[in-house]
Amino acid sequence: MPPVQMKTPKGTRDWAGDKIILREHVFEKIRGIFSLHGGEELDTPVFELKSILTDKYGEDAKLIYDLMDQGGELCALRYDFTVPFARWLAMSGVRQIKRYQIGKVYRRDQPAIARGRLREFYQCDFDYAGTFDPMVPDSEILSLIVEVFEALRINVTIKMNHRCILDGMFAAVGVPQDQLRSISSAVDKLDKSSWEEVKKEMIQKGLFAELADRLGSYVLSKDSHSNDIESTISFIKSDELLMANGNIVKGVEEMELLLQYLNAYDIAAYVKFDLSLARGLDYYTGLIYEVIVEPSPTADGTELQVGSIAAGGRYDNLVAHGSTSLVEERMAIARELRQANISVNFNPNASQKARKQLDSADCAVISVYLEEDAATSDGIVIKILTLPEKNLEKATVVDREDLVDEVRKRLA
Amino acid sequence: MPPVQMKTPKGTRDWAGDKIILREHVFEKIRGIFSLHGGEELDTPVFELKSILTDKYGEDAKLIYDLMDQGGELCALRYDFTVPFARWLAMSGVRQIKRYQIGKVYRRDQPAIARGRLREFYQCDFDYAGTFDPMVPDSEILSLIVEVFEALRINVTIKMNHRCILDGMFAAVGVPQDQLRSISSAVDKLDKSSWEEVKKEMIQKGLFAELADRLGSYVLSKDSHSNDIESTISFIKSDELLMANGNIVKGVEEMELLLQYLNAYDIAAYVKFDLSLARGLDYYTGLIYEVIVEPSPTADGTELQVGSIAAGGRYDNLVAHGSTSLVEERMAIARELRQANISVNFNPNASQKARKQLDSADCAVISVYLEEDAATSDGIVIKILTLPEKNLEKATVVDREDLVDEVRKRLA
Repeated sequence: MPPVQMKTPKGTRDWAGDKIILREHVFEKIRGIFSLHGGEELDTPVFELKSILTDKYGEDAKLIYDLMDQGGELCALRYDFTVPFARWLAMSGVRQIKRYQIGKVYRRDQPAIARGRLREFYQCDFDYAGTFDPMVPDSEILSLIVEVFEALRINVTIKMNHRCILDGMFAAVGVPQDQLRSISSAVDKLDKSSWEEVKKEMIQKGLFAELADRLGSYVLSKDSHSNDIESTISFIKSDELLMANGNIVKGVEEMELLLQYLNAYDIAAYVKFDLSLARGLDYYTGLIYEVIVEPSPTADGTELQVGSIAAGGRYDNLVAHGSTSLVEERMAIARELRQANISVNFNPNASQKARKQLDSADCAVISVYLEEDAATSDGIVIKILTLPEKNLEKATVVDREDLVDEVRKRLA
Repeated sequence: MPPVQMKTPKGTRDWAGDKIILREHVFEKIRGIFSLHGGEELDTPVFELKSILTDKYGEDAKLIYDLMDQGGELCALRYDFTVPFARWLAMSGVRQIKRYQIGKVYRRDQPAIARGRLREFYQCDFDYAGTFDPMVPDSEILSLIVEVFEALRINVTIKMNHRCILDGMFAAVGVPQDQLRSISSAVDKLDKSSWEEVKKEMIQKGLFAELADRLGSYVLSKDSHSNDIESTISFIKSDELLMANGNIVKGVEEMELLLQYLNAYDIAAYVKFDLSLARGLDYYTGLIYEVIVEPSPTADGTELQVGSIAAGGRYDNLVAHGSTSLVEERMAIARELRQANISVNFNPNASQKARKQLDSADCAVISVYLEEDAATSDGIVIKILTLPEKNLEKATVVDREDLVDEVRKRLA
C-alpha cells in the first residue's frame, strides 16, 4: 500500500499561528463596521439543496462543488452567500434586514493562489434587503466598503457600472436578447484579457464581428472620458443611439442620483465608472461594483497584483424566485373561502413554509396551509388542521374542490 | 416546472437573530477558557482528501459525506477535527502544541434534532499533541471540560473508561482479536439500547453467546460498585481473570494516577468510571470519556434528555499514520551519504513535505529531499537541488543508486 499523501485538497489551506491571528483581527475589524451599520449576523449551512443553486450563476455554475448522491437530497457546497440569503429571506418571511455573513464559500476553478484566491475562501457579505428609495442603500454599502478598507489600511478603487446601462448598450448596438448574458460574461473578462481575445469569444458565442466592434467602441471608451462618474455620464448623454434606449436613461438617472449621495458620503474620489465592468453573475439588476487594490510595491521592489478583493451589486428579483407562486395560490383560496362567507385571516408575511403559516394562526379556529409538492398536478397540496391541535402530522390533506365543504363541516 | 422548494438540506439549519447571538456568546466563553490553557487556534478546510479520512472511523465511516467526483482529487467533508489535526501535525512538522478548533463537522446520520444534534453541527475541540508524562495532559483536559461547563452553568457528569481496560476485558473473556473493534462498537450502544439488543448484535457479529454473557457480567457491573474511580478500580483488582491481563494492569495503573491528578484539580466528584463506555472511534488508545448533561426539568415539567454533549480520549498513533516511512528512508539515505564521507545535516523535525525540508536547509550546499510517489516501486522519489536555487520545480530526480555519485559531482 502506498503511503497516504499528507496534503490538503487542491485550492485549500490550513490556517494556524500568526496567519489565523491576523485573519481573525481582520474579521473583527470588518465585523465591527458591519455592526456599526446595523448589520445582524446570519449563518447558513455549508451546503444547500442543488435545486436552490440552479440557474443563479450563469456560466460559472460549472464551478459548483456537488456532493455525491449517497441517497436522499441532492446537495452542493455554497458558491456564495447571496443565494443562501435569498433562500433564508423566502423561508423566514423577513422583509427588511441588513444582514452580514462571514464564512467560507467554494468554487471549483483554477485557484490563483499567488493572488490569494483559493477554491475554499472567505467572503464577508453585507446585504440590504427591503424596499427603499433608489440608490440610498447602494450608496451606504459603498460607504461601508470605503470604511472597511480604510480600517484595514488598504488603498482601493471602486470600479462601478449599471446593469441597465450595460444591457441597454448591448441592445443599442444590436446584441440579440438571448445572447445578453453570455456576451456580458465575455465583456467581464476585459480586465484580464485583451480586446482581441474577448472579441474572439464573442464571435464564438455567435455574435457578428461588426456588432462586437460596435460594442468595443463603448466598452473600450475609457480613454475618451476621464472615468469619473460625471464625465462618463456626459459621454453617454452625448450619444444619441444610447440615449434612445429606455434602460440606459433609467441607469443614467440612477447614476446621477448615486453621485449626489457619494458626494454626501464624501467618497466620490474612490469611484470609477467603468463601462466594461459586467460581473459574471446572472442575478444583478442595477448598480454593480468591484473593489480593486491599488498595486503596492513589495519588499523586493516588484508590484503585487491582487486584483479585485470585494464586489457586489443590486439584485432585485432573486428573493422572489420560487416563493411567490404560493402567495397567489393562497390569495385564490382566501377568495374562495370568503365567497363562501368564511372569515379568512390572510397572513401577508407568511412564506410558503407550513410551520411558519401555522405559528401565526393563533387566533384562528381552522388553519389552512399550502405545501409545495412536485408529485401533484398543480405542484401544491392543501392541508387543514383544527386548532388548538398544533401537530402538523395530524393535518388532513384536502382536495381543492372539497376545501370549502370541509372547512364548513369543521366549523359547524 | 414545480416551484423550487425553499428549505435547508436535511439535518442542517440557519442561525439568525437571538440564536446566533447566544451561540457566539457560548463560543466566546469556550474560546476564552481554551486560551487560558494556552490553546492556539487552527482552522482546516471543510473537506479533506478522501484517503486521509479512510480507516479512521470504524463502522461510522459510512456516515461520511463524499463530494462528487467531478475530476481531480476525491474529497469528503470532514467528520471531526481530530483527523485533520493529525494530518496538519504530519504536514507541518509541529511536534508539540495545544491547539483548538471551533467549527462545523458533518455526519450523514439520522439527525436527533430534538436533542440538538444535526447532520451539520459544531464541535469545539481542544487537543494536546506531544510527548508528556502519563495522565498529565489527560487530567488537564478533564479540568478544562469542567471549567467550560461551569462557565456555561450546565451540570455535567463525565463518564470515563480506558481502552486498555476495555480491550483487556474483551481479551480476558475470550473475544477474538479480530472482533475487538466491532464488539467494542456494540458495547458502546449500551447507553441507548438494552443488554438484550446489544447481546443480539454481538452474536450477529459472530461472538459466541457464552462469551457475550461473560462480557455482560463486567460491562453491566455498575451495581456491584459505586461507579467512582476508587471502587471501580477495587472491583477490577479483586478479579483474578482481569488482573492476569497486562493491558488491564497498565490501564488500572493509569487510572490510579489519574485519580491523584483529578483530586489535585478538585474535580473527582464530576467523574464516573463506566466499564461499558466504549466510544465508536477506532483511533483511541487510552483514556476515553463522554460528558453527559444531568437531566434538568423544563418549563412544562418534563425532563430534557440531551445525552452526551462532549467527548474525547487519548489517541497515540493517529499522527504517525503515513508520516514515519519517510523518516526511516531519510535515515537510510543519510547513512549512505555519510558512508561516502559526505556531511549530512539531518533535520529531525522535517515532515515529508518537500517545501518544509528545503526551508530548513539554509546552510546546506545541496538539498536532498524525498517525496511520496505511489507510481514508483518503493513509493518514493528522490530529488536534489543545488542551493541557493530554491525553486523546487528545478530539482533533479535521481535514482537511488546514482545519488551518492550525483551529489559528489555537484560538490566538486
